[in-house]
Amino acid sequence: MSPTFDPSSPVFKIHQGGKLVVTSSLPLTDREALSLAYTPGVAQVSAAIAADESLAATYTWRSRLVAVISDGTAVLGLGDIGPAAALPVMEGKCALFEQFAGLNAVPIVLATTDPDEIVETVVRIAPSFGGINLEDISAPRCFEIEARLRERLAIPVFHDDQHGTAIVVLAALRNAASLTGRSLADLRVVVSGAGAAGVACARILLAAGIGDLAMVDSRGIVHPSRSDLNPVKRELAELTNTSGISGALEAALAGADVFLGVSAGAVSEAAIASMAADSVVFALANPTPEIDPEIARRHAAVVATGRSDHPNQINNVLAFPGVFAGAFDAGARQITEGMKLAAAAALGSVVAAELRPDYIVPAPFDERVVPAVRRAVAEQARREGVTGASAGPARPA
Amino acid sequence: MSPTFDPSSPVFKIHQGGKLVVTSSLPLTDREALSLAYTPGVAQVSAAIAADESLAATYTWRSRLVAVISDGTAVLGLGDIGPAAALPVMEGKCALFEQFAGLNAVPIVLATTDPDEIVETVVRIAPSFGGINLEDISAPRCFEIEARLRERLAIPVFHDDQHGTAIVVLAALRNAASLTGRSLADLRVVVSGAGAAGVACARILLAAGIGDLAMVDSRGIVHPSRSDLNPVKRELAELTNTSGISGALEAALAGADVFLGVSAGAVSEAAIASMAADSVVFALANPTPEIDPEIARRHAAVVATGRSDHPNQINNVLAFPGVFAGAFDAGARQITEGMKLAAAAALGSVVAAELRPDYIVPAPFDERVVPAVRRAVAEQARREGVTGASAGPARPA
Repeated sequence: MSPTFDPSSPVFKIHQGGKLVVTSSLPLTDREALSLAYTPGVAQVSAAIAADESLAATYTWRSRLVAVISDGTAVLGLGDIGPAAALPVMEGKCALFEQFAGLNAVPIVLATTDPDEIVETVVRIAPSFGGINLEDISAPRCFEIEARLRERLAIPVFHDDQHGTAIVVLAALRNAASLTGRSLADLRVVVSGAGAAGVACARILLAAGIGDLAMVDSRGIVHPSRSDLNPVKRELAELTNTSGISGALEAALAGADVFLGVSAGAVSEAAIASMAADSVVFALANPTPEIDPEIARRHAAVVATGRSDHPNQINNVLAFPGVFAGAFDAGARQITEGMKLAAAAALGSVVAAELRPDYIVPAPFDERVVPAVRRAVAEQARREGVTGASAGPARPA
Repeated sequence: MSPTFDPSSPVFKIHQGGKLVVTSSLPLTDREALSLAYTPGVAQVSAAIAADESLAATYTWRSRLVAVISDGTAVLGLGDIGPAAALPVMEGKCALFEQFAGLNAVPIVLATTDPDEIVETVVRIAPSFGGINLEDISAPRCFEIEARLRERLAIPVFHDDQHGTAIVVLAALRNAASLTGRSLADLRVVVSGAGAAGVACARILLAAGIGDLAMVDSRGIVHPSRSDLNPVKRELAELTNTSGISGALEAALAGADVFLGVSAGAVSEAAIASMAADSVVFALANPTPEIDPEIARRHAAVVATGRSDHPNQINNVLAFPGVFAGAFDAGARQITEGMKLAAAAALGSVVAAELRPDYIVPAPFDERVVPAVRRAVAEQARREGVTGASAGPARPA
């Protein structure tokens, strides 16, 4: 039994029976209602969709339905805890989709960790859903799984640990730069952590025109001369670290403008103190940031964390509800890099006129956020012409 | 475009946007609620389940959650219409689970019709659910798929087209026999149709002690000398037709006590007239019964159909809500033959004191039905010791 299991605590009490409910949007309380919503009436709807599958968008729930899919290998700070233990987190995520965007979502936890099996399983159940939110799947498997699913499916596929984090980080960093009189192109960024979030943050910052960027993993600065890099890190080694530094995190931080921590690895006060003037520290490890934000504030102009009890919370809930809602509004076949950049720009602009060092991103419950992100994502999808979503692959002949 | 597609008709109007909604059972409207139901609070629940998976029954929604799974190959009277077109039917089925038993259900439609792929897919998503309701999967594939899933999973697996129908048919037939002064052992039954429902009805009637039973498929009476039988029919050929008759449906019906139609094949008035005195006709094809019930009543003592606009409706909704609810109440690892027989006995007994020729089964909205079936199924599961459900297979090491 886990030492944290206390059935009388508020957390366990509110989790009793789980957190989600499926209800019928029609009352089925008499024979006539039943004959419309079920047999024989429903056969007309099924026959119509069989003749023209695009009608499924109007006459089923899948056009507003997200599958929240996890294999339980990288859950919160807990790691590889398996599908059953991941389920409460996925239920919570589904609840957030409803609360923040009015979408519906269903958790699907998987009894496999094999990338081939995960891809095949998701492809096979995809006709049930309008979009796929991958969640808490460990790196580097998550990169391959997402890429293959994007290729196989004509509906939005989004690994939130990567792209949700990256969108909010980009929005926050652009505002932090603006607040300190700089643009993204002026900044040299050190990303500590090369897992799902670190890799996606690096990619979106490069796409947004960051000045320079170095990634640091548990073995030091990512550099093309290293022989221990997986394919994803090897690709990033070619695109980052243009000054060619090597060594430990401390070497990278000396004179850097931005520390972006997306790992559990601590960073010392001395290393933060060695950064350039007006430095920016995003210490996003949860629940324990890479450096105490109070200490970081002694040296940095702007400090953000992943915690709700500190200012500047970098919280994925600022991104994923609006991203999926906008993609669904446009009938998007995928979530493109352009749509992610548009989401970040819209998110940052919500508070652009009110920036303070302790207010570079909106609060999670700011009601301006989802509509702004949603509109920007839908507009960008239409601009790129990636509409015409079609849930699931064609039926094999 | 289907000729039946009329967006202004009531059926299409009520189907707009689909029929199901997922909501959070907790309001997530402030930071504190979020920190209990999601991070950081939820990590305690996940850690506890990781240490003791049995806690998932209490602290997730899966112990009340059914997956309604279809590959869209045998949908209503429409046949092989594919997953998207099957989705409205599966949404309706999920709504019935909520309406009749207070359970939650989610439709999963599959982009494959391959039995191996279906089995693997369901096994992999099984940790998300407390039970599996297979629906509208064509015979004979459905027999193999269900059997393999029952072997692989330690949660209830139930192909409703087979067993839901079989349970209601047995309940109704026992009452029809009782009404006409006979027992099941006195009856010679002809089952017209050897698909999912026909096979399951034959099996449950044999298990309940029917006197004799002959199955008839599109090529005539099932008999061991036939060389065109699939393995399931071959097995039934050995167990049925003890008088060794062969030939067409009409040959089987001469002097028979019961006609059980579970196919779309029509039967003539002359064939019905050739049955024994006090005959029983269950003409269950939908929407068009094998024989007009008005005509059948000229010759038969009791007539039942699958239609809601005639008396004696044989409707699966009398069985599956109570079967799953009872199985969940007991934490049943499977739905055994004994539990199905118990369900049929309980269902029949609801109206046993009120029997009339036009009232041998309760109406779908009879509020006594689900509690009676539920209690009987749970009691039988405990009696057989098939409790200790464990959602999904063990995590591979």
